[in-house]
Amino acid sequence: MAKHLLLLNGPNLNLLGTREPGIYGATTLAQVEQAARDQAASAGAQLHAFQSNHEGALIDRIHAARDEGVDFIVINPGGYTHTSVALRDALAGVAIPFVEVHISNIYQRESFRHHSFLSAIAKGTICGLGTEGYRFAIDFALRSS
Amino acid sequence: MAKHLLLLNGPNLNLLGTREPGIYGATTLAQVEQAARDQAASAGAQLHAFQSNHEGALIDRIHAARDEGVDFIVINPGGYTHTSVALRDALAGVAIPFVEVHISNIYQRESFRHHSFLSAIAKGTICGLGTEGYRFAIDFALRSS
Amino acid sequence: MAKHLLLLNGPNLNLLGTREPGIYGATTLAQVEQAARDQAASAGAQLHAFQSNHEGALIDRIHAARDEGVDFIVINPGGYTHTSVALRDALAGVAIPFVEVHISNIYQRESFRHHSFLSAIAKGTICGLGTEGYRFAIDFALRSS
Amino acid sequence: MAKHLLLLNGPNLNLLGTREPGIYGATTLAQVEQAARDQAASAGAQLHAFQSNHEGALIDRIHAARDEGVDFIVINPGGYTHTSVALRDALAGVAIPFVEVHISNIYQRESFRHHSFLSAIAKGTICGLGTEGYRFAIDFALRSS
Amino acid sequence: MAKHLLLLNGPNLNLLGTREPGIYGATTLAQVEQAARDQAASAGAQLHAFQSNHEGALIDRIHAARDEGVDFIVINPGGYTHTSVALRDALAGVAIPFVEVHISNIYQRESFRHHSFLSAIAKGTICGLGTEGYRFAIDFALRSS
Amino acid sequence: MAKHLLLLNGPNLNLLGTREPGIYGATTLAQVEQAARDQAASAGAQLHAFQSNHEGALIDRIHAARDEGVDFIVINPGGYTHTSVALRDALAGVAIPFVEVHISNIYQRESFRHHSFLSAIAKGTICGLGTEGYRFAIDFALRSS
Amino acid sequence: MAKHLLLLNGPNLNLLGTREPGIYGATTLAQVEQAARDQAASAGAQLHAFQSNHEGALIDRIHAARDEGVDFIVINPGGYTHTSVALRDALAGVAIPFVEVHISNIYQRESFRHHSFLSAIAKGTICGLGTEGYRFAIDFALRSS
Amino acid sequence: MAKHLLLLNGPNLNLLGTREPGIYGATTLAQVEQAARDQAASAGAQLHAFQSNHEGALIDRIHAARDEGVDFIVINPGGYTHTSVALRDALAGVAIPFVEVHISNIYQRESFRHHSFLSAIAKGTICGLGTEGYRFAIDFALRSS
Amino acid sequence: MAKHLLLLNGPNLNLLGTREPGIYGATTLAQVEQAARDQAASAGAQLHAFQSNHEGALIDRIHAARDEGVDFIVINPGGYTHTSVALRDALAGVAIPFVEVHISNIYQRESFRHHSFLSAIAKGTICGLGTEGYRFAIDFALRSS
Amino acid sequence: MAKHLLLLNGPNLNLLGTREPGIYGATTLAQVEQAARDQAASAGAQLHAFQSNHEGALIDRIHAARDEGVDFIVINPGGYTHTSVALRDALAGVAIPFVEVHISNIYQRESFRHHSFLSAIAKGTICGLGTEGYRFAIDFALRSS
Amino acid sequence: MAKHLLLLNGPNLNLLGTREPGIYGATTLAQVEQAARDQAASAGAQLHAFQSNHEGALIDRIHAARDEGVDFIVINPGGYTHTSVALRDALAGVAIPFVEVHISNIYQRESFRHHSFLSAIAKGTICGLGTEGYRFAIDFALRSS
Amino acid sequence: MAKHLLLLNGPNLNLLGTREPGIYGATTLAQVEQAARDQAASAGAQLHAFQSNHEGALIDRIHAARDEGVDFIVINPGGYTHTSVALRDALAGVAIPFVEVHISNIYQRESFRHHSFLSAIAKGTICGLGTEGYRFAIDFALRSS
Repeated sequence: MAKHLLLLNGPNLNLLGTREPGIYGATTLAQVEQAARDQAASAGAQLHAFQSNHEGALIDRIHAARDEGVDFIVINPGGYTHTSVALRDALAGVAIPFVEVHISNIYQRESFRHHSFLSAIAKGTICGLGTEGYRFAIDFALRSS
Repeated sequence: MAKHLLLLNGPNLNLLGTREPGIYGATTLAQVEQAARDQAASAGAQLHAFQSNHEGALIDRIHAARDEGVDFIVINPGGYTHTSVALRDALAGVAIPFVEVHISNIYQRESFRHHSFLSAIAKGTICGLGTEGYRFAIDFALRSS
Repeated sequence: MAKHLLLLNGPNLNLLGTREPGIYGATTLAQVEQAARDQAASAGAQLHAFQSNHEGALIDRIHAARDEGVDFIVINPGGYTHTSVALRDALAGVAIPFVEVHISNIYQRESFRHHSFLSAIAKGTICGLGTEGYRFAIDFALRSS
Repeated sequence: MAKHLLLLNGPNLNLLGTREPGIYGATTLAQVEQAARDQAASAGAQLHAFQSNHEGALIDRIHAARDEGVDFIVINPGGYTHTSVALRDALAGVAIPFVEVHISNIYQRESFRHHSFLSAIAKGTICGLGTEGYRFAIDFALRSS
Repeated sequence: MAKHLLLLNGPNLNLLGTREPGIYGATTLAQVEQAARDQAASAGAQLHAFQSNHEGALIDRIHAARDEGVDFIVINPGGYTHTSVALRDALAGVAIPFVEVHISNIYQRESFRHHSFLSAIAKGTICGLGTEGYRFAIDFALRSS
Repeated sequence: MAKHLLLLNGPNLNLLGTREPGIYGATTLAQVEQAARDQAASAGAQLHAFQSNHEGALIDRIHAARDEGVDFIVINPGGYTHTSVALRDALAGVAIPFVEVHISNIYQRESFRHHSFLSAIAKGTICGLGTEGYRFAIDFALRSS
Repeated sequence: MAKHLLLLNGPNLNLLGTREPGIYGATTLAQVEQAARDQAASAGAQLHAFQSNHEGALIDRIHAARDEGVDFIVINPGGYTHTSVALRDALAGVAIPFVEVHISNIYQRESFRHHSFLSAIAKGTICGLGTEGYRFAIDFALRSS
Repeated sequence: MAKHLLLLNGPNLNLLGTREPGIYGATTLAQVEQAARDQAASAGAQLHAFQSNHEGALIDRIHAARDEGVDFIVINPGGYTHTSVALRDALAGVAIPFVEVHISNIYQRESFRHHSFLSAIAKGTICGLGTEGYRFAIDFALRSS
Repeated sequence: MAKHLLLLNGPNLNLLGTREPGIYGATTLAQVEQAARDQAASAGAQLHAFQSNHEGALIDRIHAARDEGVDFIVINPGGYTHTSVALRDALAGVAIPFVEVHISNIYQRESFRHHSFLSAIAKGTICGLGTEGYRFAIDFALRSS
Repeated sequence: MAKHLLLLNGPNLNLLGTREPGIYGATTLAQVEQAARDQAASAGAQLHAFQSNHEGALIDRIHAARDEGVDFIVINPGGYTHTSVALRDALAGVAIPFVEVHISNIYQRESFRHHSFLSAIAKGTICGLGTEGYRFAIDFALRSS
Repeated sequence: MAKHLLLLNGPNLNLLGTREPGIYGATTLAQVEQAARDQAASAGAQLHAFQSNHEGALIDRIHAARDEGVDFIVINPGGYTHTSVALRDALAGVAIPFVEVHISNIYQRESFRHHSFLSAIAKGTICGLGTEGYRFAIDFALRSS
Repeated sequence: MAKHLLLLNGPNLNLLGTREPGIYGATTLAQVEQAARDQAASAGAQLHAFQSNHEGALIDRIHAARDEGVDFIVINPGGYTHTSVALRDALAGVAIPFVEVHISNIYQRESFRHHSFLSAIAKGTICGLGTEGYRFAIDFALRSS
């Protein structure tokens, strides 16, 4: 059966390509999502993408992923990375493996960005590699059994 | 007049009975809510139940409780326990007495679960007693004048 | 062109005038918002007001402000002051100057209220001056070029 | 065989009903213990009660419980909650399941009362529900297999 | 009787308008004090201004204010904000209401500037709004009963 | 009626005069207690003295003091100063005013001796003045109404 | 030769008897100083008293004490207790033994009052015993060789 | 004259051999004490053994050791290791050299077990070597002059 | 000119494939290095690999890289990640861009592994993706201009 | 034009040569200042020296230095090193380069002496080299352009 | 087959017997190593000894021990105890049981010596017993199966 | 006999003059070392210089210094300043007086550079004065008896 992936983007990532390009680059979220869908399709998998500024909506989407049989999640949790136990619990609750992606290098920024509530339950983390990070994470997801 | 109770469950508790049963047991949220309604009814009181993964929706529901004349709230705030000042402010704002319930023993888990923003304004807290905790909290609510 | 202002109020500020009047006073949010609109109009500017208990809805509103060409934001972030990196990122992302207002003196309250995630990117902060704080912030906004 | 329970009360709980009634209520320890014995008897179980101001005496009593075949302990460790590793070791050593009870809401009091050495090895904790907390704990003990 | 205000400026504020204009702007202290006196006079009140680099002199001046019947103090405590318990005690000792003003946004500067010994006993605080902050504080003082 | 005082000494103070005389001096506990009894008698009061190395025994003695109508306690809690919440609760429970005495200057010793669980509920504290500290505390007790 | 004592009072203690009488009592500083002079004279010693709100003036006075041959200092350092390394260095520099006195119980107040820069080099400390504390300290000074 | 040793065991060590054998092994305390007496006797020394769950009883026993002329103490302070200043003071007070023994490796356990109040005044510490640790400590004691 | 890459592995990575395979997998370092060389060659670049357990040798190798004209470094600093300022200074000194790779998810391990001295000066970090992490880092290096 | 230097000494440095010679040596402040003037004169520069125990007087003197065209300041801030934000602000405000000198090695003393509010804005710091430190600092000042 | 032991000594232990004899005693490292070899030989085992000041050389030696079939390591890691994650990883990587020895009592020294990166993965630790500690560790190693 | 000095430079100082010249200046290490040798020779002393990126090599060199009769060490420990207990132990072990030099002002850089393991045992420290710091340290060394 075709592998099923979910690409989640958290708060403010809808601004991608328009917000602080010095930090986040000029690629838009739509471009990121299209590239992700293409990358998955090339590997015979399907990928759905979802972005929300609402913590609860992200949690609802993660719950739905379990019912849809999603195999792997790639998530850039944005600002909720550092503050959301509920998001962590959602990911732990559905028990779908996931990779955490950050476009910028969070270790070059404010100290409150150095801690993630998700990392300890993720398969792994990629940060600072720009939107390439999504590509690597999807590549990893596609290869993971 | 009949006593009016509100049972609130926060993020991910909709997964109850299906998520990490080793930690949370096999009872579903629907069963918990039905048992709570029955327990209240047996005492001549009425109980409404509400669950949401959205912090804002929980706050809205608490505000509504004041208008409805709710006498007592039993709340399992889930992951928002540890991160939500806004939820605390909502409960303080409506000034309805409440008991905080946790199904699992939060002191056997990660250290970030050891602090609750709600406990200091609750009547009390019950944790680690599984879904029995809800029953005790409702019992307490029904007896409190 | 007429200056365009946005007045944002965060969680529980809809209770203003009814909640803990000893701390927050008896003026309602509707009165605050009307006074703000009048104050802006007197200076030939226009001001829109928005309140929500939902972190995501506040972020959405801030994003919309950029498209509307809002020149200045006055925000009382309520409980999200102390917990929301996502709200900070939204304000940084749209790069609209803003003043942070707190009705009560947060330094006379619990220590977790002494830190704000927004202050470091605000133009400035006013706290403890009751609803007069909004008037001063709008005054500042109207004069800032 | 009849279930065997032990109700332990730590330092200063002999003052119950006479000490700081605003915090602890007017019920005496003798009344609490009699109610506990009655509650157990109603369920066909037996309950012994013991109070001491001596950390060592509480430890000795816990050791004795193992030899007596006690099935469950309900303990209000009083001030030793926050300072006694030895009491924790005694409970861990005899491996009898127990519930920790606090009459007052320890989260509304001094910060040194917010940490318990026992909670991490308890089945669960009840605090702030007055002497009702004992009743709930015994109820839980009687139902636990 | 005419309202009596005192405008206090602490260490280094005599350099205002000449020191680090990027942070503090180009208005001199003399201009600030004259504007304050005018603002008070317009409201039928009188305002005295005092600046000193000496912690003890500021304390002496606050003590004198009590004897003079000063109704309200507006104070920019400069570097003593973060280090002077004695100044706090002086303000608490004379029990004259006061507003704390900072010209720059102290939350954008070194972390040792994020704590004020005065805030917890002030009516409120204004920071980051440049010398406008003095105007708002005096406005508040003039309106407060 | 004659004033009734209790002089309590905690662990290791039975060694007084024999233990580390460089720190504690050469006066024995018997001498201290006799001097205290004489000092009280001279003022027409009576003083009982008690020393124990057992935390529980000290608590029991404090409880008994309430039944005896003790008006004031002078206590040197020894090593329990820094570790005993239970002792604090006993003193708070009987609500007898007390002064805390330390023979040596605890601020010249290890940092764990710089915190006392009793000070916050004592009338006051005397430390570092040798056995004179007892005399001052009893003098204070005798004069306090 | 007659013993020579110095009684030093730090910032805000000139307000004694008029400031926050609930905390500090109704005795004035003049009364305290007169009583101290009388107490010293009764023992054939002389005592000079000095109060200042200026940290530097207190340091100057301590330096002068060395030239005057002062044998013992009794000091209530007021707010400088918690912030002045320079005052500590002055006392260490002249190497005159001293006792530190606080009128109120600093352990019942804000946590920043719990640390003293002077205690570690004092003979001892008396706190919370009101103005009696001065009398005890002078008594100690008069008896110390 | 024959060397005189004291072997002290603190709280819960009476459970040795029966409690958590995965951590503490299957040797009983009686066996440990007999082996210790034999080891001492073989070297022409005598060894007394004492175990108590009471902090005060351990302190009393240490005081008695001084009168008995004990040359060296081997102590496993159990849970009091981490909480008892009074025990430390007793050992410092009698000034008998001692070695601290822990059967389990306390650095593989909870972080509150990583600090010992005794280590800084012990000759040395042995931990994690099971009951062999007692043998090594006694060997050291027998050889120390 | 052909791009020149350096693959550095720090202490204990020579054990790869043989050490704790549950954490690090079964691929050997030789295999990782050969795959890296092949990956670079496929892109027309050259890659040299170096592993050492010596902090100084790694620093020397980084210095040499500057002279060799290395364009990009991929480094798994092993245990030096958390302790070596000197390694950070070496990388900053030669100013060659680099990506930091960790095979295991360091956020699932001891807390001292959660801080890296290198991350703040890296382009980015990849952790927890096994030896795939090296492939992604080299891919990134090959594409970076 | 001749270079203009200012040598500032803070609280208690007037005691130099008489105070704690084991720590500070036997050279007096007058000797230090004369040597400094001679050293400057030899290089065709002029140096003024100032010492005060008053924080405010030091700040006033620094402000005056700007008007006098002082090119470089050498300052030993004494106890104000660790506590004075106001002094730091004065030096930053006049923007005159300075070197911070400490006679003793502050890292061998109490931990509160390990932090300086001035170091981060100084050109550099010299400590522990006795009064030679002044000579080196002046040498540096004379050579700096 | 004969048991194979490795005795490792870290940085500065080559100075043993010549360096700070008040702390470390007068026995040289050569004597320690010879005694260790003799002790092993007496038990029919063989022991190799190695000392290095180089962290990397110690790691290399530990890796080699795995290939040599070493059964047990006794290690005094010297200053690397407190700073080397790499050494810890080496010991964990080869999975050879080891005992950590410190000649001096590290708990009587600077606080940075109170933490060891090795203890949590050692069988146990011996400290403060001088060079006897090596003998006990080897004895333990020889008896361990 | 001629005085014998050793100039030690730690990791990355071989890059001096080529690395981050904005921070470290343009003088090379060879120039620094030659100037140091000349400075010593002018005073009739001899100076040897050594640089290494290897912690162990620096320790070995310090040990050798004792055998060579080195009278004084001037050391710039580079990145090992903040991480090496072993280097500190080496310097303490050979008991040769030394001065610690930093070219840049470490207090203007990352907070992990604010702590030095060497300072507490150095004669003193010079930082931020560029390569002049070496000259002052050697001058001090040459004059120290």
